[in-house]
Amino acid sequence: MAVYTEVTDDALRAFLAAYDLGALVAFRGIAEGVENSNYSLRTDTGDFILTLYEKRVDPAELPWFLGLMEHLAGRGISCPRPVAGRDGASLRGLCGRAAAITTFLPGVWPRQVRAWHCAPLGEALAALHLAGADYAPVRPNALGPAGWPKLLDRALDSAAAVEALSPGLGARLRAALARILAGWPDSLPRGHIHADLFPDNVFFLERRLSGLIDFYFAATDLLAYDLAVCLNAWCFGADFSFDVGKARALLGGYAARRPLSAAERAALPVLAQGAALRFTLTRLYDWVHTPPGALVVRKDPMDYVRRLEFHLGVGDAGAYGI
Amino acid sequence: MAVYTEVTDDALRAFLAAYDLGALVAFRGIAEGVENSNYSLRTDTGDFILTLYEKRVDPAELPWFLGLMEHLAGRGISCPRPVAGRDGASLRGLCGRAAAITTFLPGVWPRQVRAWHCAPLGEALAALHLAGADYAPVRPNALGPAGWPKLLDRALDSAAAVEALSPGLGARLRAALARILAGWPDSLPRGHIHADLFPDNVFFLERRLSGLIDFYFAATDLLAYDLAVCLNAWCFGADFSFDVGKARALLGGYAARRPLSAAERAALPVLAQGAALRFTLTRLYDWVHTPPGALVVRKDPMDYVRRLEFHLGVGDAGAYGI
Repeated sequence: MAVYTEVTDDALRAFLAAYDLGALVAFRGIAEGVENSNYSLRTDTGDFILTLYEKRVDPAELPWFLGLMEHLAGRGISCPRPVAGRDGASLRGLCGRAAAITTFLPGVWPRQVRAWHCAPLGEALAALHLAGADYAPVRPNALGPAGWPKLLDRALDSAAAVEALSPGLGARLRAALARILAGWPDSLPRGHIHADLFPDNVFFLERRLSGLIDFYFAATDLLAYDLAVCLNAWCFGADFSFDVGKARALLGGYAARRPLSAAERAALPVLAQGAALRFTLTRLYDWVHTPPGALVVRKDPMDYVRRLEFHLGVGDAGAYGI
Repeated sequence: MAVYTEVTDDALRAFLAAYDLGALVAFRGIAEGVENSNYSLRTDTGDFILTLYEKRVDPAELPWFLGLMEHLAGRGISCPRPVAGRDGASLRGLCGRAAAITTFLPGVWPRQVRAWHCAPLGEALAALHLAGADYAPVRPNALGPAGWPKLLDRALDSAAAVEALSPGLGARLRAALARILAGWPDSLPRGHIHADLFPDNVFFLERRLSGLIDFYFAATDLLAYDLAVCLNAWCFGADFSFDVGKARALLGGYAARRPLSAAERAALPVLAQGAALRFTLTRLYDWVHTPPGALVVRKDPMDYVRRLEFHLGVGDAGAYGI
């Protein structure tokens, strides 16, 4: 469900009057996405996406996100490009929310990840990192390692709910966090990362990657951490078995465009542990804080606890196929 | 939220192979709709809607619904037209559901009903009734008056929940049902009705009605009952005040294409009471039977109790502006 704010006809008409997009042809809510309200918008000049930014997104940060997308699109990355109104602005108010129109990307996100998705994914991630190098503004990663202790504390405020999920889970997560932070590599190459490149944010057409979407978790952080997120999001089966063939394809595709340094390769296990912990913590927080009856699908934190346990057992990057 | 069944890439590819629609370009879940899973589907030959029929729809009835849509589209009604595969069939299996592709209709459904929507709505409803006259198959209306006593009984199984909603509500609904059934007009003109023509099922482009969708409550029943559904769905304000201007426009638009008989006009109050009761009952049933925590928006039954109370107080069709 991804329409939290209903856009009235009059409000839409007034909003579109600020653009040179021609007459409205169709306007439908999009089911995908969980953070913002997204509509597919067709006018007689083409197809677009209208996004209303909901409460998780800080409006003050939107210029950074939209600026990054504009920058990346200008350097050939296939990502949504903000569409400016006649006043030159791509961000304006609609129904009490900040809102923007972006270009429509063709493609379909893979409901089932196959090994052949992973090399193009790695290549696209490397291309994104390289294209972002000269985007000057910086956004610290609030969901990076500096934010994890507080996230864990807030989840463990509901100690009984966490214990109910898995006995001893709180203590195991505290131990994992301490170990990960102690081994965290701070001197690896940094840049702008997507930070949430799950399958539903990557479009394919035939066997070609056709676009990357949803940059609203993007931040400035370790580039190899983005790969670690993808190792978690793309390389495990439904039974939580790790698919080393997918990992090899992902890392190989990446390295073909941006070779990993020896330090980055060596850090992959702890980066993958950190990425698994990050998604465990946000899911755990949502799990224990979502009231029963809320209209939100709570994602099972244990899916990422299992990934975390896998990565904690990894000796070196050889386990990822390189 | 209207994606209950996720369609995997492989399943979609195999499904589309049965059609001559060209290569897949985009595939996105549609947020609107509550009964079935709907996807917007683009191929290099055009835009379509893919619907997977979920549990409320009896697969045995789908040929009737799709046949009606095909029939109406063939007679110039702007409604989704089933797209046949190479084998001539427009209904086949996908991910364990019956599924069909229909044509895409341009337009936007009105989030705020204005008086100017109502005359075109009435005209389109009359055109639908006239165009359906020579569609021979019949579908009894399971949600018509014959079904209301059982629906009320099943809702009142949870007497405490109904009482909690409004003290005395159960008794008031029993009395209303008895009065409505006693006055129900059985000899009015019959035909195929849409039976669920709410604003989210009617598209407009500029100020023109561009299409009618979602025929999965359609049935064979009193034609004027369809108007009574629209009186309820389109002619009340957010404060439940009745807008006689909208009603006059609706009924006038309808009568311009299909004049109402004196008996139909006289029956409007009881038909409107019945329509209000029908939506009260299904909402009430869902209200008392939806477990807390279910991922479904429960619509407040009291919205229709208030409409019912208005119509119970109406003396004659003059209250509707005619």
